Amino acid sequence: MVSQVIVVAGIGNGSGTGGAVARRFAQEGYAVALVSRGETALNALASSIVSSGGKAEAFAVSEYSGDQITAAFAAVQARFPAPQFAISVAVFNAGHGTWKPFLQVTPDDIRESNKVNIEASFAFARAAILAFQTNTPTGNNGKGTLIFTGATASLRGNVTTSAFASGKFAVRALSQSLAKEFGKEDIHVAHAIIDGGIATGNTRGDRNTPPSGPVENPKPAGLLSPDSIANSYLYLVNQDRSSWTWEIDLRPAHEKW
Amino acid sequence: MVSQVIVVAGIGNGSGTGGAVARRFAQEGYAVALVSRGETALNALASSIVSSGGKAEAFAVSEYSGDQITAAFAAVQARFPAPQFAISVAVFNAGHGTWKPFLQVTPDDIRESNKVNIEASFAFARAAILAFQTNTPTGNNGKGTLIFTGATASLRGNVTTSAFASGKFAVRALSQSLAKEFGKEDIHVAHAIIDGGIATGNTRGDRNTPPSGPVENPKPAGLLSPDSIANSYLYLVNQDRSSWTWEIDLRPAHEKW
Amino acid sequence: MVSQVIVVAGIGNGSGTGGAVARRFAQEGYAVALVSRGETALNALASSIVSSGGKAEAFAVSEYSGDQITAAFAAVQARFPAPQFAISVAVFNAGHGTWKPFLQVTPDDIRESNKVNIEASFAFARAAILAFQTNTPTGNNGKGTLIFTGATASLRGNVTTSAFASGKFAVRALSQSLAKEFGKEDIHVAHAIIDGGIATGNTRGDRNTPPSGPVENPKPAGLLSPDSIANSYLYLVNQDRSSWTWEIDLRPAHEKW
Amino acid sequence: MVSQVIVVAGIGNGSGTGGAVARRFAQEGYAVALVSRGETALNALASSIVSSGGKAEAFAVSEYSGDQITAAFAAVQARFPAPQFAISVAVFNAGHGTWKPFLQVTPDDIRESNKVNIEASFAFARAAILAFQTNTPTGNNGKGTLIFTGATASLRGNVTTSAFASGKFAVRALSQSLAKEFGKEDIHVAHAIIDGGIATGNTRGDRNTPPSGPVENPKPAGLLSPDSIANSYLYLVNQDRSSWTWEIDLRPAHEKW
Repeated sequence: MVSQVIVVAGIGNGSGTGGAVARRFAQEGYAVALVSRGETALNALASSIVSSGGKAEAFAVSEYSGDQITAAFAAVQARFPAPQFAISVAVFNAGHGTWKPFLQVTPDDIRESNKVNIEASFAFARAAILAFQTNTPTGNNGKGTLIFTGATASLRGNVTTSAFASGKFAVRALSQSLAKEFGKEDIHVAHAIIDGGIATGNTRGDRNTPPSGPVENPKPAGLLSPDSIANSYLYLVNQDRSSWTWEIDLRPAHEKW
Repeated sequence: MVSQVIVVAGIGNGSGTGGAVARRFAQEGYAVALVSRGETALNALASSIVSSGGKAEAFAVSEYSGDQITAAFAAVQARFPAPQFAISVAVFNAGHGTWKPFLQVTPDDIRESNKVNIEASFAFARAAILAFQTNTPTGNNGKGTLIFTGATASLRGNVTTSAFASGKFAVRALSQSLAKEFGKEDIHVAHAIIDGGIATGNTRGDRNTPPSGPVENPKPAGLLSPDSIANSYLYLVNQDRSSWTWEIDLRPAHEKW
Repeated sequence: MVSQVIVVAGIGNGSGTGGAVARRFAQEGYAVALVSRGETALNALASSIVSSGGKAEAFAVSEYSGDQITAAFAAVQARFPAPQFAISVAVFNAGHGTWKPFLQVTPDDIRESNKVNIEASFAFARAAILAFQTNTPTGNNGKGTLIFTGATASLRGNVTTSAFASGKFAVRALSQSLAKEFGKEDIHVAHAIIDGGIATGNTRGDRNTPPSGPVENPKPAGLLSPDSIANSYLYLVNQDRSSWTWEIDLRPAHEKW
Repeated sequence: MVSQVIVVAGIGNGSGTGGAVARRFAQEGYAVALVSRGETALNALASSIVSSGGKAEAFAVSEYSGDQITAAFAAVQARFPAPQFAISVAVFNAGHGTWKPFLQVTPDDIRESNKVNIEASFAFARAAILAFQTNTPTGNNGKGTLIFTGATASLRGNVTTSAFASGKFAVRALSQSLAKEFGKEDIHVAHAIIDGGIATGNTRGDRNTPPSGPVENPKPAGLLSPDSIANSYLYLVNQDRSSWTWEIDLRPAHEKW
């Protein structure tokens, strides 16, 4: 029996989308490979999943660059080798945002945005697709699902978002190109637009303290719950290949948009 | 204990999206109110749901007009009265498509398109929202979910689709306006873009014979399965109000787009 | 020598987009056929153009319906017959807007919106395209240019715009379908998105008094000048067929969007 | 009397958009600053403009990087100093396209795309906006116009365009962000989507031979004429600030889209 593996890149302090996705898929029986900066929070999340009866391993990177993402993905594959394991879900949740008036954006800001948002996402996508191509689908499942986490800035540039929107538009272009190119190989690529604030540890002011578990949403109609985002990713992964979604938007009920 | 009711408008011969949604929600315990033209197929679908242990009632209309939709919705509310019942899901799946070179489109084509796609959808939305406003939500659910079925032509006009795309663009505008206006009242409005051919009885050449049950998809990577579309609608309905989707696209893995 | 004719539908009180387009093209030597409700303002505009040395004729309608638009266009063709005249530009500037909370929108509002925004625009487009098809292009010009005036609501539904946005989305769909279908016949179809308030007589509070001429823009960075919109239409008409625009947006420099 | 200066970045072999824009604005009396790789073609274009009675200077770069663009722009400002000169138009026409199946895209392709499409465009935009901010507008003109040349891939990712579309989406995001941020300072930012093939020297198979002048379009309804694109840029620059365009699309009459 083959164990399914999900690779999640970008978990922050573990209280946001990446952490929630990891926990949710662990509950579904996936082995979880966590690729992230911030080794303390990363290890805390892995331990927390394991102590809840799940399977999780941490693969720390010091930055989200093409090289490090490629190396981390190779380490994931070494740790979860075929044929016992099959990497069938990959979530790119890293990102680099700079909210500044344009004239304050520095060349380093742009290079950092390009490195994280574009070089890293391309490297992650390449590794995921190469891994998926070796899978044998069952029934009407595809060979794998690659999900990118987008944002309001994926759809609209705005005052103070020139650098961030450029990176997010680029990721959206990548996701659409891949969805069109690899759909015919039964590989599913999706893009989720998170159009609102997310209830995380940061919301509560403890950005640097990894929470021991999920954070309660203080404004359930005004902030997205990471667990709800994770449910949407699980739904996307479980779509059969007759009806795949490329793009889904998610926002709180009371969001003004 | 309150029973939840779903109202589905537009079921065709029962083998497509409307029929699949009805069957799927019946399995989840919803009472199903079917509003449709084509009384034979309509009654066959209701009977089939009942004989599978579900609860379903047929509300025939002779055309999809504002008046008839309004009257049918009132009949649904009389049949499923509060407080025993609560109408919490409404799916507008009717539509009128004319694929013709523009110069062959007649004034009657346009009026018919306007009646079905716009007048009927506005009337349906009004009745649904008024019904939802009387509901008492539990937990982080909203007061109700209204879903419109869209198509490729909801996003792009094309050669031979002037009339159809006009109607579908209009419905999309309605759905977005409503999502923004009623989100703050905890009412969820969503728009699903079905971007491909659907595996229905029509696909098999028996448009006029209501199938006794779901149709097997002859090309599961090339045609959308109505049951998969229905699953996406169920997912949308079950989203908690921290993370609601306005728009989702659905297409087969091998679709060229 | 053939005289070029422009048909402009929808001039309001003559101080907005329709009036400015009529005056601008008259200056370029076009014979102007004005199709509009509001006979007083219509005749005042025609007289004003004639007294400035231009050629203009008024074709009053009592409402913007498919039938009346079709009849008015036929009257234009009778008045400006081939081969002395060639109808080569047609501008659909009529529209029906209802800004109301959704639950206050009546079935009559919707029918009126459908009649003006959709039935009338389809009829106008049909007459224009049939007229253009008889033209003989010179050089790299096409056979004619059909322009639709859009609005912010052509792109986004919003609170209080359910009916207006539905109509405007529908017109945009029509324009895109036509651009794709008739480009290959050398007929140019364009859609202008007016994304801001327009400086008209209404801006000054005299909606019912046709101004004797153009209105000065009191906030030239905050309101669109009709003459500037007219210049954009002239630019679109003068594009050679190697480089045609389907969609252009126009907004004031200080507009927040 | 102040002389107006246009800075054009990216002229290729001089037979495409950049060259046509340079020639067109020179005819209008602008001093033209040409920033480009390909020193031979660059000097040939400058000489050709000068010998036609225009004013033009070449500012060669060895690559389109942030640093080189910044340095070149400073050289332009030194050569055309205030108050005799005012840089009032800037056109970013450089770009890096890689059309390859995704799995053939290398990390170097991505870095090169990021450097040219994003780092260089941000540096160019920064220099242009800082220059514009020192201008004194007259009448209802703004302080300057910055135009980015886009492509089909600015709007849609597709098979074989993952890298190119990512870069082009990013530029579009930048242009929209800037339009919103600097409109209120009376600075105009626009984005032109060139949605089709362009008739250039390359079309005739002589990519490496700079043509002595404009190339005749062999398929005037099937390929965009660079001179027509240049006319659209001139139109955008001449818009008064009551009615500015952010985005315009341009395609040949017979283009299938």
